Amino acid sequence: MAIIECIPNISEGRRREVLDACAAAIQGAGARLLDVKPDATHHRTVFSYAGSAAEVKAATLALFDQALATIDLREHSGEHPRLGAVDVVPFVPIEGATMADCVALATEVAAEVAARHGLPIYLYEEAASSPARRNLEDIRRGEFEGLAAKIATPGWAPDFGPATAHVSAGASVVGARMPLIAYNINLATDRLDVAKKIANAVRHSSGGFRYVKAMGLALEDRGIVQVSMNLTNYEKTPIFRVFETVKREAARYGVSVLESEIIGLVPSAALTRSAAWFLQVSDFTDAQVLENALRNSQ
Amino acid sequence: MAIIECIPNISEGRRREVLDACAAAIQGAGARLLDVKPDATHHRTVFSYAGSAAEVKAATLALFDQALATIDLREHSGEHPRLGAVDVVPFVPIEGATMADCVALATEVAAEVAARHGLPIYLYEEAASSPARRNLEDIRRGEFEGLAAKIATPGWAPDFGPATAHVSAGASVVGARMPLIAYNINLATDRLDVAKKIANAVRHSSGGFRYVKAMGLALEDRGIVQVSMNLTNYEKTPIFRVFETVKREAARYGVSVLESEIIGLVPSAALTRSAAWFLQVSDFTDAQVLENALRNSQ
Repeated sequence: MAIIECIPNISEGRRREVLDACAAAIQGAGARLLDVKPDATHHRTVFSYAGSAAEVKAATLALFDQALATIDLREHSGEHPRLGAVDVVPFVPIEGATMADCVALATEVAAEVAARHGLPIYLYEEAASSPARRNLEDIRRGEFEGLAAKIATPGWAPDFGPATAHVSAGASVVGARMPLIAYNINLATDRLDVAKKIANAVRHSSGGFRYVKAMGLALEDRGIVQVSMNLTNYEKTPIFRVFETVKREAARYGVSVLESEIIGLVPSAALTRSAAWFLQVSDFTDAQVLENALRNSQ
Repeated sequence: MAIIECIPNISEGRRREVLDACAAAIQGAGARLLDVKPDATHHRTVFSYAGSAAEVKAATLALFDQALATIDLREHSGEHPRLGAVDVVPFVPIEGATMADCVALATEVAAEVAARHGLPIYLYEEAASSPARRNLEDIRRGEFEGLAAKIATPGWAPDFGPATAHVSAGASVVGARMPLIAYNINLATDRLDVAKKIANAVRHSSGGFRYVKAMGLALEDRGIVQVSMNLTNYEKTPIFRVFETVKREAARYGVSVLESEIIGLVPSAALTRSAAWFLQVSDFTDAQVLENALRNSQ
């Protein structure tokens, strides 16, 4: 059976009962819940679940029902930019599924959610209806607070649903993409300018690596700063290269890397290949990983 | 079904037709052949295969038949110490199998091979009949050439088979152990003394890490030297710590690490945890690896 993963981000990272209800809705629909990662500072939670297209679709519809009933963006603030109560919903091909399967699933879910909730929906990445809508950042620019104006602007009518912002839930961005690694590097300093300069140096949009999105944030409660990143293709822009570059850029300002964080799940190959690089292993192949060899020989 | 892996080392690393026949014998017996790693310098090959206890037993008996018919240690020389044509045969618990299962399997195979071929067999590691026989190095000391004298020494009668060396096949060492990583670090120098000093520094027997066996070797054909290691417990003595220590010791002699090699298979966790260490990932757990999350949720 083809397996598809869905990794929605919702704009709630503090109320445990809301997150529990969302998790129950996902599981009740038959999907396998893989991970729940709440972030109180960002006031945002990443869910991850997987299953057949039908299971993942049912789980996603149930999640929208639950989240829209309990989240009101008019009362929401957090470090992370957001456009909707259910902010971003990417579908990712895992085992035996194609990108075309995920694009079809994203389109179906978008149509059904828009009809059910009167919610404007933008399709993004591989499911985008035009090149101008591929990038999440372009769609999200202006955030919830700027949505009413933006959605009325020529070229920014949603792909599904009304061309007016939902009063409490804003709009949602639904799409299909390759596996992504949510990767943050925390710096042993409170100098926000350093985090912003490093984000600027490594991200694609300002001249950095092709498959890196990055921003500099303050983690006020800890008195440190963070380079918050999405690595959108770990095969072509590997995690170790991004880490080493951030570390070197930080050193130029006399700043050390305190630690890094992997948010949610990470494909095994992204880490095993990083280990092989750090350990200078020559001629390493994924087939040398015992679990891969067992799977391939079955 | 419980899965057991077997990783025998045979004293043949050059004749392709012999290795092909051994591989065919293993597969013909129903085991899944995971890897074949010949080493011409060591004149030695590591096979890896897995399956149920019955499949792995049948494959191992077939391998002994094939290897003993085609390998004559009287004509064998190589860099690596060896006692027999089939030198070492460890059984390792993988999925759903216990160490006790592997000890039982090792004992059965040893009895049957000894009876069928008139071959002396020593049991080692977890299957050892006494503490003096736990360590492979102690059993193998003196090698094939010294076996006739050693086997007649009090305390060195084999666990199965005659107390006389097999004329062409010597003796074999059969046992059970935890997964082991065969890990070599090549140094950018031809100074054998440096490789030997570093091996001495990191191995348990001379004061180094608890779960490291190591020796310094010359790779004559490449004009470099190698610290050749077995890491016998990657959870307690992790690969990254060994690599960093070897690198630091080499630097003290003005020598660089050229590259490292993982021979055969490596458990995923040994590499993903190494990546997490190098990348300074805080709060990393094995459950964050996507493939583990999928397996655990099934």
